[in-house]
Amino acid sequence: MRIEELQTPALLVDGAAFAHNLETMSSALPGPRLRPHVKAHKCTALAARQAAMGHPGFTCATIREMEGMAAAGLGQDLLLANEVLDTSRLGALARSGARVTVAVDSEATIEAAARGGVQEVVVDVNVGLPRCGCAPDDAGRLAELARGRGLEVRGVMGYEGHVVGLEDRAQRTELVGQCMELLVKAHASVGGELVSAGGTGTYDINTWASEIQAGSYALMDTAYGKLDLPFRQALEVLATVVSVSPGWAVADCGLKSLGMDHGNPTIEGASVWFCSDEHLTFSADPLPAVGDRVRVIPGHVDPTVAYHERLHVVDGHDVVEVWPVDLRGW
Amino acid sequence: MRIEELQTPALLVDGAAFAHNLETMSSALPGPRLRPHVKAHKCTALAARQAAMGHPGFTCATIREMEGMAAAGLGQDLLLANEVLDTSRLGALARSGARVTVAVDSEATIEAAARGGVQEVVVDVNVGLPRCGCAPDDAGRLAELARGRGLEVRGVMGYEGHVVGLEDRAQRTELVGQCMELLVKAHASVGGELVSAGGTGTYDINTWASEIQAGSYALMDTAYGKLDLPFRQALEVLATVVSVSPGWAVADCGLKSLGMDHGNPTIEGASVWFCSDEHLTFSADPLPAVGDRVRVIPGHVDPTVAYHERLHVVDGHDVVEVWPVDLRGW
Repeated sequence: MRIEELQTPALLVDGAAFAHNLETMSSALPGPRLRPHVKAHKCTALAARQAAMGHPGFTCATIREMEGMAAAGLGQDLLLANEVLDTSRLGALARSGARVTVAVDSEATIEAAARGGVQEVVVDVNVGLPRCGCAPDDAGRLAELARGRGLEVRGVMGYEGHVVGLEDRAQRTELVGQCMELLVKAHASVGGELVSAGGTGTYDINTWASEIQAGSYALMDTAYGKLDLPFRQALEVLATVVSVSPGWAVADCGLKSLGMDHGNPTIEGASVWFCSDEHLTFSADPLPAVGDRVRVIPGHVDPTVAYHERLHVVDGHDVVEVWPVDLRGW
Repeated sequence: MRIEELQTPALLVDGAAFAHNLETMSSALPGPRLRPHVKAHKCTALAARQAAMGHPGFTCATIREMEGMAAAGLGQDLLLANEVLDTSRLGALARSGARVTVAVDSEATIEAAARGGVQEVVVDVNVGLPRCGCAPDDAGRLAELARGRGLEVRGVMGYEGHVVGLEDRAQRTELVGQCMELLVKAHASVGGELVSAGGTGTYDINTWASEIQAGSYALMDTAYGKLDLPFRQALEVLATVVSVSPGWAVADCGLKSLGMDHGNPTIEGASVWFCSDEHLTFSADPLPAVGDRVRVIPGHVDPTVAYHERLHVVDGHDVVEVWPVDLRGW
């Protein structure tokens, strides 16, 4: 199939850029040093390519992602890097043969894991981002509590999410060090083999973590594109120009095909004015013609992919593979 | 089922508020005076309730919405209020018995409609929003062109999208008048029975249009909630508190369950700090406990619903119906 035949809006994955990104990351973080995060793409076909690069374990953000990965034969070592109160589905998943580890940061989440039949946990430690995670000083107590409930404690995790996107590399490096000092200290009181942390923005400067949870590197977006990273923009939304007026044009790609929390998307050589539900208004010189195709680069990869049913892997104008985005929902 | 049993995040529709909204709108705009826009909810079960209030026609934004409405038996009079270049699926839909009308604003879109087998069009007129629509002075020429290609021209449409959200009613009223002056003038040169325009914010002040394309009124959001409208907030995202730290709490509802283009969502009695992919960090006094449920009110209804698989209609804590969000995608 040619991309000219695609119904728009459609997600395109540049096969060469994607391959470059996987090779670059796997060279830097071989095997279990990388635990790819599937939340960025929600696609088991893409995850299978990451597994084929030699990474045995994956990071997930939702129960649905855990279930879908196991159903796709990728359940060798799944970490749900998130707290869960109703663990019944996770317990069933573990009993079906997948290796299921879940993050805990409180007595309630430890109790939930034990009650639901999950057998392995990591203690989630707050390293500075105001989100989940216990106080570093409390990690040892929670680990003991978990062991007392019969759970295997595999180690700690602590996501420096407030640092991964900083554009200044020196500042990013300094702050990662401060965050990981907290995590390493917590790990000393928890034990276990895992120190799980990091993301695409810190994959090469977080040298404290035993494994990095990066996900965006595979497809990239304009936010991470501003950093000094060796990964190429592999994801675009293909759109069709449906209307042209004096001074602006409109493409059929809007709020329902783009994650907007990082602001407007980008079109090379054009100026994006605003997005409506199914429209993107932009100016360019010269303006395109009605029927022309444009390539739109999302500001934030994760919530963009979550709107779409499939990824189209392209080589030039040829669609060489179609991958279902099969891990959406909860 | 009780809402306590729902997997979170989950969309809740307050059945009483929803019924109030439908009754209020249908009293103001009975029968064909309202052409409900399905893009706000993407749900044929909800649309069936709107049809039962006596509105024979619907407005759609995508081909998928048109197809889904027809498949659900709601294809009596479907207007695709959007320009389309590849009309092959719309032509097939018309041949299958649905009444299909599509917006045109250029020679290319007229040609596409004729070539694809669509038989009825409206001329889309730009009334001030920099998006689709021809110049008002050009509408008559395009109507003649369409008739020359054998198309039935049903009239005009022109969406005052830059006006519907203005909080000041006097300003909103004045600007609607200016917009509709352009549309009425264009209509005089086009002919046909339809003057289709308006939205939830102008449903009662746009007295020029023969039919109003409102959609958000059924479920509402915080943006329209700021206006002086008689519609009640009927949509919430139910979330579970998964982590509590000194000063903040985290619920399991984030960027992938909320349209973010209008900014952060709202929690009554709490202050929302920020959203991550699957998390919402907020403060409140007192803080909730881990496991508590919170109700999150979206900033923008349309891109919120588009992330979800179903709507749960609730009466107090009882889930009385579950409606699939079956019009997603393209």
